[in-house]
Amino acid sequence: MSLSFHIERASGRARVGRLVTPHGEIETPVFMPVGTLASVKGVPQDTLEELGAQIILGNTYHLYLRPGVETVRRMGGLHGFMAWPRAILTDSGGFQVFSLNELRKVTEEGVTFRSHLDGSSHFFSPESSMEAQIGLGADIIMAFDECTEFPADRERMRASMEMTARWAARSKKYFEEHKTEVPWARVAHVGTAAPGCPAERSSAGESSDFPTLAAKGAARMGHPIPGDATQSLFGIVQGGMDRELRRESALRTIEVDFPGYAIGGLSVGEPRELTREIVESTLEHLPADKPRYLMGVGTPEEIVEYANLGVDMMDCVLPTRAARHGLLFTSEGKVSIKQARYAQDQGPLDPGCGCRVCQRYSRAYLRHLYASNEVLAQVLNTIHNLSFYLDTMRRVRHSIRLGEESRFSSSVWSRPEP
Amino acid sequence: MSLSFHIERASGRARVGRLVTPHGEIETPVFMPVGTLASVKGVPQDTLEELGAQIILGNTYHLYLRPGVETVRRMGGLHGFMAWPRAILTDSGGFQVFSLNELRKVTEEGVTFRSHLDGSSHFFSPESSMEAQIGLGADIIMAFDECTEFPADRERMRASMEMTARWAARSKKYFEEHKTEVPWARVAHVGTAAPGCPAERSSAGESSDFPTLAAKGAARMGHPIPGDATQSLFGIVQGGMDRELRRESALRTIEVDFPGYAIGGLSVGEPRELTREIVESTLEHLPADKPRYLMGVGTPEEIVEYANLGVDMMDCVLPTRAARHGLLFTSEGKVSIKQARYAQDQGPLDPGCGCRVCQRYSRAYLRHLYASNEVLAQVLNTIHNLSFYLDTMRRVRHSIRLGEESRFSSSVWSRPEP
Repeated sequence: MSLSFHIERASGRARVGRLVTPHGEIETPVFMPVGTLASVKGVPQDTLEELGAQIILGNTYHLYLRPGVETVRRMGGLHGFMAWPRAILTDSGGFQVFSLNELRKVTEEGVTFRSHLDGSSHFFSPESSMEAQIGLGADIIMAFDECTEFPADRERMRASMEMTARWAARSKKYFEEHKTEVPWARVAHVGTAAPGCPAERSSAGESSDFPTLAAKGAARMGHPIPGDATQSLFGIVQGGMDRELRRESALRTIEVDFPGYAIGGLSVGEPRELTREIVESTLEHLPADKPRYLMGVGTPEEIVEYANLGVDMMDCVLPTRAARHGLLFTSEGKVSIKQARYAQDQGPLDPGCGCRVCQRYSRAYLRHLYASNEVLAQVLNTIHNLSFYLDTMRRVRHSIRLGEESRFSSSVWSRPEP
Repeated sequence: MSLSFHIERASGRARVGRLVTPHGEIETPVFMPVGTLASVKGVPQDTLEELGAQIILGNTYHLYLRPGVETVRRMGGLHGFMAWPRAILTDSGGFQVFSLNELRKVTEEGVTFRSHLDGSSHFFSPESSMEAQIGLGADIIMAFDECTEFPADRERMRASMEMTARWAARSKKYFEEHKTEVPWARVAHVGTAAPGCPAERSSAGESSDFPTLAAKGAARMGHPIPGDATQSLFGIVQGGMDRELRRESALRTIEVDFPGYAIGGLSVGEPRELTREIVESTLEHLPADKPRYLMGVGTPEEIVEYANLGVDMMDCVLPTRAARHGLLFTSEGKVSIKQARYAQDQGPLDPGCGCRVCQRYSRAYLRHLYASNEVLAQVLNTIHNLSFYLDTMRRVRHSIRLGEESRFSSSVWSRPEP
């Protein structure tokens, strides 16, 4: 009822599937744009809908600090708060606090860390991460894991992997005991008694217009959320760069039993060939009938490659972050729009792209916006890059449906920048 | 052929009119959003269209420095460069160099100034301002004037006003001699010989995709530009805060003969009552059958007030600049969205507003975006504020059409912020 996954077509190791969440269906393999602070930076939600984003990501660590879980929970969770009716996934905060380096301390109980905003001290454990993620109310939430640093010796990798396995069990236990506390019902059933919703609508009286916006949100959603729907918790496989530890981590995580499995702890500085090797070997140990989520990758070439290996879900800040630095992905290769060579280039950014940016603006204009530090540069660049990633995944799905022979490959990007 | 203005309905001193430019019709009184660097900061052009913006402003000083007039000219002028098919107005650069204070030196010939970007030295005269504005290719361009500082003694105000009058004549002379050099024909008649277009399409070969984008631009425009259409040059009345000098400036500017007249040199630090007094008295001396443009005002209250006095066109950075500082105009008064009181406010920003921001997002979300320094804050805030201004002008036009009794007044904003 809360999550179903059907594989519609397989071709080699790749597969096209349909992931049904309480907030809509997702065609897989899917790329999930990152909306760290409940916003895909610079892009309005209606534009994300037009681009065909079916699911977006939120970062628990950032949202926990700002605006705080309780604020989001009172707004009906992230869906209500950011007015996004489609599916959402939150990470556990584990990777984010891992990135804080000097500012964290890890024990069996959890992680003490300092806020990057004001230095204040906080604590995340499997239980508190689940509590936060239930309050945020994403459709898919992630077990609290430890992301092993790279490089690390085998003893360290094993100890870290084993703690992640214990934390997975604790994450699941807390989630099962508290999963009915998800805040959706308050938005979906506004004005009626919300079954399975223990928290009061304590803030509903703050504005008489709340029902209006909420009703609009529900209408936008297009379908009611099933009364017994909850979030779904995915497990995360760790094990560093050791294939045997990855196998063991996969088996121990599967033993806890999750409706989906992620591969974490990659893209942490290791060479790309090693990433691929670990992904490929780990995938062998994951159940074929469950969605497989590769966290934090990658380039357009990589998302095609991993989809062809059988990965169903991916996320990465690359398209949005690169856009902010004027790095644009096109069917003809990468374009660094800041370059003077584009100053009078009247052609579209990508002649092969149908996005609203390529349909309307010239490279000269995009270059001018970037060079002049205009905010519209970030907006348009991000729209294009996301469009390119989402289109790429559409093509991958199409090619998988057509079967092995016509498999879409990443070779179109292999030639160097012109 | 290049500009026509019809008054459709008058009520008291106010009037509703239709201003026809080579790039479309404009209902007056009109508010013109400011797009300094060929971009209304943070807002994509299709969103501006949806908001109903009929004409936008560009700043000659800024565009002259970045990306440079020649680049814009080669792209078919601002319309082609920024892919905006509707009307555009450029200022003369006079007010902008006036704002540079320490960095300028004024002589009879013109103004020497230093770039705020890199300190490089430049020179604007009536002739070079016309040359730049012809290259930029806006539908309506402005005579090069001197904006008199405030306060100034009468002698200074007179000398300045008289120089502006001489500059108006020089502006007109240069414009009449060069107005056929406007770059539109190259976009409107792409692929065919462009009559009255002396400049070669020297850059057309740089990208084979140019015709595609240009053809799309022409299709978006919806109508061909008449072959003999040119830009229209408006005169500017100066004269400081002296009613008699303003009268004299009006008469001398009218003597030069322009298809429209602007009131410049206001909103330079004087009290608001004085602004209104000068506007009111100057309007008496402007021909009733020509469009009247009040430059650089104002608040929502002020644009209503001036429209009711008979002003037809207004522009101001206030809605866009205030948006970037989290100051939002609503039917219930001003809202400073950064305030903590909105952190859990689930209502829309303005319950009386139909814009896409108010239809979708809560005050809590807008507050979060602003507090978190998210770029989407600027995007959404600007969309709302522009929507509010454009809606305000729509209501003003409607009330003028209905006649005196039901005149829309600014009293709705008179109550203090809640």
